[in-house]
Amino acid sequence: MTLHSETLLDHACLIVHGPDQPGLVAAVTALVTRNKGNIVSLDQYSSDPEGGDFFQRVVFHRPDLLATLPDIEADIEETLRPYGMQWRLTDQSIPKRMAILASKSDHCLLELLWRHRRGELPVTIPMVISNHTNTAEDVRSFGIPFFHVPSQGPDKTEAEARILELLKGNVDFVVLARYMQIISEDFLDEIAVPVINIHHSFLPAFIGAAPYRKAHERGVKLIGATSHYVTKDLDEGPIIEQDVARVNHAMTAADLQARGAYVERAVLSRAVQWHAEDRVIRHGNHTIVFTDRP
Amino acid sequence: MTLHSETLLDHACLIVHGPDQPGLVAAVTALVTRNKGNIVSLDQYSSDPEGGDFFQRVVFHRPDLLATLPDIEADIEETLRPYGMQWRLTDQSIPKRMAILASKSDHCLLELLWRHRRGELPVTIPMVISNHTNTAEDVRSFGIPFFHVPSQGPDKTEAEARILELLKGNVDFVVLARYMQIISEDFLDEIAVPVINIHHSFLPAFIGAAPYRKAHERGVKLIGATSHYVTKDLDEGPIIEQDVARVNHAMTAADLQARGAYVERAVLSRAVQWHAEDRVIRHGNHTIVFTDRP
Amino acid sequence: MTLHSETLLDHACLIVHGPDQPGLVAAVTALVTRNKGNIVSLDQYSSDPEGGDFFQRVVFHRPDLLATLPDIEADIEETLRPYGMQWRLTDQSIPKRMAILASKSDHCLLELLWRHRRGELPVTIPMVISNHTNTAEDVRSFGIPFFHVPSQGPDKTEAEARILELLKGNVDFVVLARYMQIISEDFLDEIAVPVINIHHSFLPAFIGAAPYRKAHERGVKLIGATSHYVTKDLDEGPIIEQDVARVNHAMTAADLQARGAYVERAVLSRAVQWHAEDRVIRHGNHTIVFTDRP
Amino acid sequence: MTLHSETLLDHACLIVHGPDQPGLVAAVTALVTRNKGNIVSLDQYSSDPEGGDFFQRVVFHRPDLLATLPDIEADIEETLRPYGMQWRLTDQSIPKRMAILASKSDHCLLELLWRHRRGELPVTIPMVISNHTNTAEDVRSFGIPFFHVPSQGPDKTEAEARILELLKGNVDFVVLARYMQIISEDFLDEIAVPVINIHHSFLPAFIGAAPYRKAHERGVKLIGATSHYVTKDLDEGPIIEQDVARVNHAMTAADLQARGAYVERAVLSRAVQWHAEDRVIRHGNHTIVFTDRP
Repeated sequence: MTLHSETLLDHACLIVHGPDQPGLVAAVTALVTRNKGNIVSLDQYSSDPEGGDFFQRVVFHRPDLLATLPDIEADIEETLRPYGMQWRLTDQSIPKRMAILASKSDHCLLELLWRHRRGELPVTIPMVISNHTNTAEDVRSFGIPFFHVPSQGPDKTEAEARILELLKGNVDFVVLARYMQIISEDFLDEIAVPVINIHHSFLPAFIGAAPYRKAHERGVKLIGATSHYVTKDLDEGPIIEQDVARVNHAMTAADLQARGAYVERAVLSRAVQWHAEDRVIRHGNHTIVFTDRP
Repeated sequence: MTLHSETLLDHACLIVHGPDQPGLVAAVTALVTRNKGNIVSLDQYSSDPEGGDFFQRVVFHRPDLLATLPDIEADIEETLRPYGMQWRLTDQSIPKRMAILASKSDHCLLELLWRHRRGELPVTIPMVISNHTNTAEDVRSFGIPFFHVPSQGPDKTEAEARILELLKGNVDFVVLARYMQIISEDFLDEIAVPVINIHHSFLPAFIGAAPYRKAHERGVKLIGATSHYVTKDLDEGPIIEQDVARVNHAMTAADLQARGAYVERAVLSRAVQWHAEDRVIRHGNHTIVFTDRP
Repeated sequence: MTLHSETLLDHACLIVHGPDQPGLVAAVTALVTRNKGNIVSLDQYSSDPEGGDFFQRVVFHRPDLLATLPDIEADIEETLRPYGMQWRLTDQSIPKRMAILASKSDHCLLELLWRHRRGELPVTIPMVISNHTNTAEDVRSFGIPFFHVPSQGPDKTEAEARILELLKGNVDFVVLARYMQIISEDFLDEIAVPVINIHHSFLPAFIGAAPYRKAHERGVKLIGATSHYVTKDLDEGPIIEQDVARVNHAMTAADLQARGAYVERAVLSRAVQWHAEDRVIRHGNHTIVFTDRP
Repeated sequence: MTLHSETLLDHACLIVHGPDQPGLVAAVTALVTRNKGNIVSLDQYSSDPEGGDFFQRVVFHRPDLLATLPDIEADIEETLRPYGMQWRLTDQSIPKRMAILASKSDHCLLELLWRHRRGELPVTIPMVISNHTNTAEDVRSFGIPFFHVPSQGPDKTEAEARILELLKGNVDFVVLARYMQIISEDFLDEIAVPVINIHHSFLPAFIGAAPYRKAHERGVKLIGATSHYVTKDLDEGPIIEQDVARVNHAMTAADLQARGAYVERAVLSRAVQWHAEDRVIRHGNHTIVFTDRP
């Protein structure tokens, strides 16, 4: 659970997906072995007993990994091409670069910064960008750069351009830690890295604005939070993780919001961690998540 | 938690609701005291600090309750009329009469029958009605009458008429234990007692038919169940209780259904128990639930 | 989750454990492949990055499994002997034979019988043995033979001998479903199959008799249940599964017991299912459990 | 849930306990009413239907509370003396003064400071004292004074004397936020205010040092945390709150510790909040907790 780049030295993660075929697992494990790798963990999933899609995540330890990566990659390509599989190999000792976009609320933002400082998130955080300034001091106290990009008026083009300028080339994925601005399709196309959001309801219930108010009006007995990849369809992207908390008749919409903050920060943290550890594979509008949840 | 009519001998439950006013709690407790009652439990809720609605549930022990009920009721009426409050008083030693409507699935039905046999549900069960026959033997092995009322074809009028004939005058509330027929508005008007349903999703997500299939298609990471009072609007009635269970990408819609059965039987059982114990007050499309959940 | 022998036709489960060595996973997967098996699921665990113990569970589909089992077993033996590994191969379409020992309480017993009838437990149940008669009718209504073996007086030798007579050769494992008699070391030696117990506390808290009373005296805010393999040391065997439920100051010891029954039946059911599916590997006083929990 | 002293202006909390007697609830509610108070919430518990102990918590709103407190207290004393009841009345708009003692770990400490800053804990925090210096900057960034009192060597007398000097007269209760020093009986006698601890196990399992190591050795499937009042008997004081998290065979003792941190900070926060809101009544080695948990 606690991760340090040191302990992940010489560890690689191989993700394989494509049409399921007999012998795939053996082909991959043989590949790892002949490249002197020792398999540390292996997860797989097939969407159907026959003719389904196959997904695999293999983590292996290989001394002198860095020096041999090109050879291993060539071998993977040669081995998997006949099967028509897609793959990607990542050096687990190289943390992903994660930018955080935030607004006034600090609960998701601070939780991520704090887990990162504890060494529990295998990422670097090159920057936090907010359309408010209230969290600047907190963010900088963690040694993380803070940029203020206000988003005034209905036209977000300028603000998005400024954010893109800051992010482009500097990040491997972006986290919306209760960022209260809608991201344009153009922005998603331009940034071209995964964007993870936390929505403050149990999706697909209460899509859109003010979910706690809507939950209060409907009189639900549980509230939830959902972390998902952002797509052009608002709150419709592939779900990574969800959780709930119990509420009752005596709680106001503001109480639901206060209680929900604890669910949001936990759900987003888990989603970010699993993404950073290459545990999440997108498949259409679904996710395959090889969690380490006990 | 375990309830026996014996232990509830000489216990009364008073429900009061109406416009909140200073002195109400004192008026009610003084009323109980001057009628020689000893307050065993007291719950209250006010929807607003000022000008809200007030809800109270008081359970009190009063030796020789039965003999003094008319006097107590007269005193309540006289005391609460000036406040413009509604009230109802129930003798807790008299179990409510609960009918169960079921279809092929047995998980909710058997759970209710079994909890009843354990003495955990303060109800009598005059009958189970099903549009299938597969559970007849199980039901009768609990000593409960079973009636088969088939519902063939699109016109349910005849089936509903037969069910009404069986129920009218014989029950205090009705439980739909995964009864797979839509109840008509006329039926609800005619039966004129509360009808409690269990819906196999976390409402308001996945209203209507096939919620597990829809949940699977959306790729949610939790499934849920919701128990609510039935109104003329399908799956829109006041929610009594909800709960969820975790699922993942590897589970089929059938797996969700199998897993969900355990959530459904638990949620419905709690809703039934709280209703039977006069812990639930309907208020518009909301419920006030004075649970005994620790 | 829902299991039918039919869907498990031609499926085998291979358990491997022993000293961890590079290449083991590849050796096993290659073995499966050259025997024309298609890997359906694969779990592994190594107790230490270096020099630890290695545990693996592989389920594979192999058409005409029955006919080729001897060949596969010979290949496994030859392949794994050089590594010094222990292994066992089971045909997943052959359900394990499970006997249940019970006393007066019916909650764990009925839950197992009911899950079995639903097709969720991949076992056959050749018999239920109880030292009381109250559950006889219920058990037989599930079509399961019931035997009454009273255990009177301090000397249990005669009762245990009678039970052994019934069980020997007829069962693959035994479940104590709140069986309120202590099992002797001689009995365990004689029966020589795994015995699974449910203890009504969160072990190691409240070992021995009357755990709910002890929990009430200590004033805990959660109660628990623990399913474990029975060893000669009372309540000290390897733990398979545990869970808890919230309680409060207002609950009596009897309330804890009533509430705990729901935890017990869930915990025991999961432990039995995982054992029956060869998901549990004993290792000293620990268990490796390759659960399918999402 | 979210609490601001402003919203609690003119709110008082009356705690009553002593021998149960008929008419007590009515006497207390009449008392509140004749003092022009409007009851906002009321909880009660009787340890036994007959001859038990009675506990009550009443929160009421009374305009100009401050001016009338002496009169109300005189009336309470006069009213409750004949019943032989103990009582205490607190002005809810005056936050309790809470000192925090910490060591190297920051997870419980920072969670309390952050919840306090959000306005969720109705306390002031006059100081944090630690036997390490690593959290000084974080603490001061919340605007809270930090004092370093090292505890070297086996003799803690000097350190405790220094801590007492800082605390005496300045605090209403003390929280040990993973303070890794044993508190002496003399210290408890001297400080004479409640001391709340968080123990990193599900008590009474794994009392004393290194509970995560012990939990790992026993092979439990859940780890827990327990918040309790400190008494002279180590880890034996009255329990306020407990919770657990699931773990598995693959987690090391260090993993359990990392996972457990999240349970610890949540459990301690709830215990602190309930204590600060006068929701906890000590009764022998038990607690009556009138939680607001939904």
